[in-house]
Amino acid sequence: MNIAIVGVGLIGGSIAITLKEKKIAKKIIGVDKSEANIKKALQLGLIDEGMPLEDAVEACEVILLTVPVDAILNLLPGLLDRVTNQVVIDMGSTKERILQVIANHPNRGRVVAAHPMAGTEYSGPEAAVPNLFAGKVMVYVDAMNSDEDAFDIVDTIAEQLDMQTTFMSAHEHDVHTAYVSHISHITSFALALTVLEKEKAQGRIFELAGSGFESTVRLAKSSPDMWTPIFMQNRENVLEVLQEHINQLQHVHDVLRNEDYDAFYKLIKKSNKIRRILK
Amino acid sequence: MNIAIVGVGLIGGSIAITLKEKKIAKKIIGVDKSEANIKKALQLGLIDEGMPLEDAVEACEVILLTVPVDAILNLLPGLLDRVTNQVVIDMGSTKERILQVIANHPNRGRVVAAHPMAGTEYSGPEAAVPNLFAGKVMVYVDAMNSDEDAFDIVDTIAEQLDMQTTFMSAHEHDVHTAYVSHISHITSFALALTVLEKEKAQGRIFELAGSGFESTVRLAKSSPDMWTPIFMQNRENVLEVLQEHINQLQHVHDVLRNEDYDAFYKLIKKSNKIRRILK
Repeated sequence: MNIAIVGVGLIGGSIAITLKEKKIAKKIIGVDKSEANIKKALQLGLIDEGMPLEDAVEACEVILLTVPVDAILNLLPGLLDRVTNQVVIDMGSTKERILQVIANHPNRGRVVAAHPMAGTEYSGPEAAVPNLFAGKVMVYVDAMNSDEDAFDIVDTIAEQLDMQTTFMSAHEHDVHTAYVSHISHITSFALALTVLEKEKAQGRIFELAGSGFESTVRLAKSSPDMWTPIFMQNRENVLEVLQEHINQLQHVHDVLRNEDYDAFYKLIKKSNKIRRILK
Repeated sequence: MNIAIVGVGLIGGSIAITLKEKKIAKKIIGVDKSEANIKKALQLGLIDEGMPLEDAVEACEVILLTVPVDAILNLLPGLLDRVTNQVVIDMGSTKERILQVIANHPNRGRVVAAHPMAGTEYSGPEAAVPNLFAGKVMVYVDAMNSDEDAFDIVDTIAEQLDMQTTFMSAHEHDVHTAYVSHISHITSFALALTVLEKEKAQGRIFELAGSGFESTVRLAKSSPDMWTPIFMQNRENVLEVLQEHINQLQHVHDVLRNEDYDAFYKLIKKSNKIRRILK
């Protein structure tokens, strides 16, 4: 089958590598508003051909959407108007808004909403890597609204990518990602800004930066083009978790200001329970 | 020469591996208030012998302090009373308070205050690993207060550990570590607590946790025995950076609440400047 990848960046490009390797795709067609990305993706051998979206829809059985979520929101309804029996895979990082706008579309069943919980802080076709998805979780969202044959094709691709799978509603997905992905990006952005400000005043501040700092700040390298629309679409959930996180930090601050080191010890001890989750 | 390692955990144990490998130490003597740690360190071949501190001081030319900073603060003055020509290396993560209490000690010159900017979120002798320090920075603090021969011995050890070196005052050191190490731990503790709370209310929350979440939260596995004393001794600097960080997060919150996505985009873009620091 021919597969169109709309957005040949980190996610689209990394999937393309496996689709080729496992010979799932006869032909991979790249769609990207950036001519430079298409050129790079061709050079890197990620895609076989570049095409405008309209032509790619005609030429392919599967259309994979790996563009930022504002672009998915804009192009999905019009894309569904053109679809007959093709499968459209929405791989966006937010789901509620996107699935709302196509809820009553006659071709809704051709869409499979899936979110691969994998990525790096880099973007663009040159960021694509093999095995980005192996062992990671693919979340199927509102899967009961997808046609069975469409779902089966996506599930086969997830299997070939060596992914584990789980099922959720769109609302659940957006709440959960606010807690275990979106907030992590905000803390990294804010931490980077805090320390960059200090450097301006004081210089030399990064000389001592070690692996702990790098670990908590590396997500601050993430693309604003990808992330601003995510926060726009998941605004309410993110505001809630961000407020809770600020409250936690304020509590740590108060405990330290009051020199209540027993309470401070217990806070760290309690946070150590994360060991149960992170092996 | 014989080297005593006081505190045979992650840092002490990892240094011991190199001291043996490079044949810098004729004998490595372990000192630890935990008998279990001494036993494990012997089993793992990190040390040749366990001894009480008093005996180790007699038997060794170099005494390396890799215990938590509250223990360093407590034992250092008494240890200096016993020292004649030995070298004492203070490897603690805070410096101002520790160096204050020995400022007027007649043997002050035998102490070299050094802080290896390396570590992991694990602790204990079984956490010791080879090459933990290679390529990392060793900070020499108030080096002008150390005797030249004492400093030279420590610098030779740092060279054998393949470390880069830099020099700072105690005050500078404590401010800088608050910004590029201590605050990272607090954001991890608070983020872990935020998400663990949510799990209590909602369950399943960690199913989607990927590498981004892990990266920002892994420091929450850190030992409260090591970290509570660090925050106690560096309280004022940490309170300052924590307040700045909370202000940054509150600003991100306000911008998102007001749906000012241009400002949000610019915040991310600005935080991207961290790419200059993190390769």
